[in-house]
Amino acid sequence: MIGDDYFSYFVSTNPPQMSLPTKADLLKARSWLEGMVHHTPILTSTSFNELTGASVFFKCENLQRMGAYKMRGASHALTRLHHDELERGVVTHSSGNFAQAIALASKMKHINATIVMPENSPAVKVEAVKGYGAEVVFSGNRPIDRENKVREIIDQSKKTFIHPSNDLQVILGNSTSAQELFEQAPGLSYLIVPVGGGGLLAGTALAAHWFNPMTEVIAAEPEVADDAFRSLQTGKIEMNETADTIADGLRTNLGDINFPIIKELVHEVLVVSEKEIVDAMKWIWERMKIIIEPSSAVAVAAVIRNKEKFKGKRVGIILTGGNVDLAKLPW
Amino acid sequence: MIGDDYFSYFVSTNPPQMSLPTKADLLKARSWLEGMVHHTPILTSTSFNELTGASVFFKCENLQRMGAYKMRGASHALTRLHHDELERGVVTHSSGNFAQAIALASKMKHINATIVMPENSPAVKVEAVKGYGAEVVFSGNRPIDRENKVREIIDQSKKTFIHPSNDLQVILGNSTSAQELFEQAPGLSYLIVPVGGGGLLAGTALAAHWFNPMTEVIAAEPEVADDAFRSLQTGKIEMNETADTIADGLRTNLGDINFPIIKELVHEVLVVSEKEIVDAMKWIWERMKIIIEPSSAVAVAAVIRNKEKFKGKRVGIILTGGNVDLAKLPW
Repeated sequence: MIGDDYFSYFVSTNPPQMSLPTKADLLKARSWLEGMVHHTPILTSTSFNELTGASVFFKCENLQRMGAYKMRGASHALTRLHHDELERGVVTHSSGNFAQAIALASKMKHINATIVMPENSPAVKVEAVKGYGAEVVFSGNRPIDRENKVREIIDQSKKTFIHPSNDLQVILGNSTSAQELFEQAPGLSYLIVPVGGGGLLAGTALAAHWFNPMTEVIAAEPEVADDAFRSLQTGKIEMNETADTIADGLRTNLGDINFPIIKELVHEVLVVSEKEIVDAMKWIWERMKIIIEPSSAVAVAAVIRNKEKFKGKRVGIILTGGNVDLAKLPW
Repeated sequence: MIGDDYFSYFVSTNPPQMSLPTKADLLKARSWLEGMVHHTPILTSTSFNELTGASVFFKCENLQRMGAYKMRGASHALTRLHHDELERGVVTHSSGNFAQAIALASKMKHINATIVMPENSPAVKVEAVKGYGAEVVFSGNRPIDRENKVREIIDQSKKTFIHPSNDLQVILGNSTSAQELFEQAPGLSYLIVPVGGGGLLAGTALAAHWFNPMTEVIAAEPEVADDAFRSLQTGKIEMNETADTIADGLRTNLGDINFPIIKELVHEVLVVSEKEIVDAMKWIWERMKIIIEPSSAVAVAAVIRNKEKFKGKRVGIILTGGNVDLAKLPW
């Protein structure tokens, strides 16, 4: 039995009609993050341009600290906490990149972080989080188990909960990748980002809205976890019935804070098959010599699959992360 | 029976006392290469700096066109050919990165290239060369077989032979990587490069000599193929008795054109074990999210192994290439 008070930690069941964060909010996020995160490079590939007919600019968040754009949102959320909140520390649930991001950002700010991870998390991910100095607390493997565990921790320690994607400060932090990209590669017609929980998509769409309104932001998603595609069709947050995709960062659903932003600013979601994801991932490794994780390859695959749409255009792709278990590659 | 006339294609048995190429030669090489090769980025890693105590700047030639610095030397050698030589085309022998570099550079310059490769070359490498449009001619697997085959081709077609490392124009082209690096990361105390045939080491040492004499150039080499280490000790070109190293780009020996330069300008060769090479390679993949080949990892391993030497210093490392068979990783 879960009561209303439980959900209040995670989902505002009746979110207020929110107005969009302002240009000033986005600029402020960027200045807060100065020095905490890398200004990531852009790479281009003659071969990829030949393959697609487009002129593509890859924004390399796989080269971000701890290997993913999540460092931006996590760091920004911490910078916006009050002194007493920092003293009590933070808690999140994640078995993926956000866990490492909160762990590393907390280490840099000398605050205490607890990460709730399911018991079946890969040992390599648990070790990475511990390596950054965070405390790992295990929960059962169902989403409800980890949420109960988080509630327990909040009740006991008064730590501040930071959601991996459905948090306005996380979204604003994530917006800084596209803010940089627009300066590094002006005149983009399209910007493609993978969508999972929606935190990067919302931040990117906000950045385009305020700084580059001529750039259309398009989401990319696995066919077998196409909740965002369906959510934009029905106008409400849809769930994934199964989420059996190799793109492990994209199995989650949208949230009530990021969905209104996405609904207003994003008009298209492109889906790709599992095979297309693996092929795109291998292409990038082999030809561009950089390591991207399957979730990043989803955006690459979307451009390859929809060549006709992007032909002759300047296109940005955010390569979201590069955290891969090198002992378990999908080829 | 191989007569003197045979060797004359490859080795000048009595090389003239050569004076060093001039600063103007190096600058000219850089301007010739403008637009033909990438100006490769520098990456840094907080974790690597914590691991070694040094401040390390990685020059990413793995992100160079066709995935290795060899593109610089190959492209430069072609730019310096006369019109009639270009019309007849070029020939080289290589089963590695130089084969692909000559193939791609020839394609860009619309000239005809023949690559002699041993019959036992991996299919993936043969396909890569053909993919760039070069003609592949197979030879037997011994060095002498491929050299005979090259001689045959030169006799028949009057093509110009370009040696992968023992060629002055190749060396000058290779010098441009360090020329860029010195501008991107000023004030280096040390610059570490792997040594195989000696073409990159000679070019890098020349760049330091003319543009950054305070930077000491150090070579790195596998213990099991330590011919350069021994050559600097004895003062003459030593051969590898065995060359059973995973660093397949470093199995070759120095040549009579690059060795005099190396002897004059390079004073130290650091050796590393096979395990150190694989560990360093994996560390870079896992933590920096870029793909480097074992030969590049040799330079990384040398810095890790000799932490005390480099502690507190600004150190450059040239990551020479990223061409790896993703189906055959050493872990």
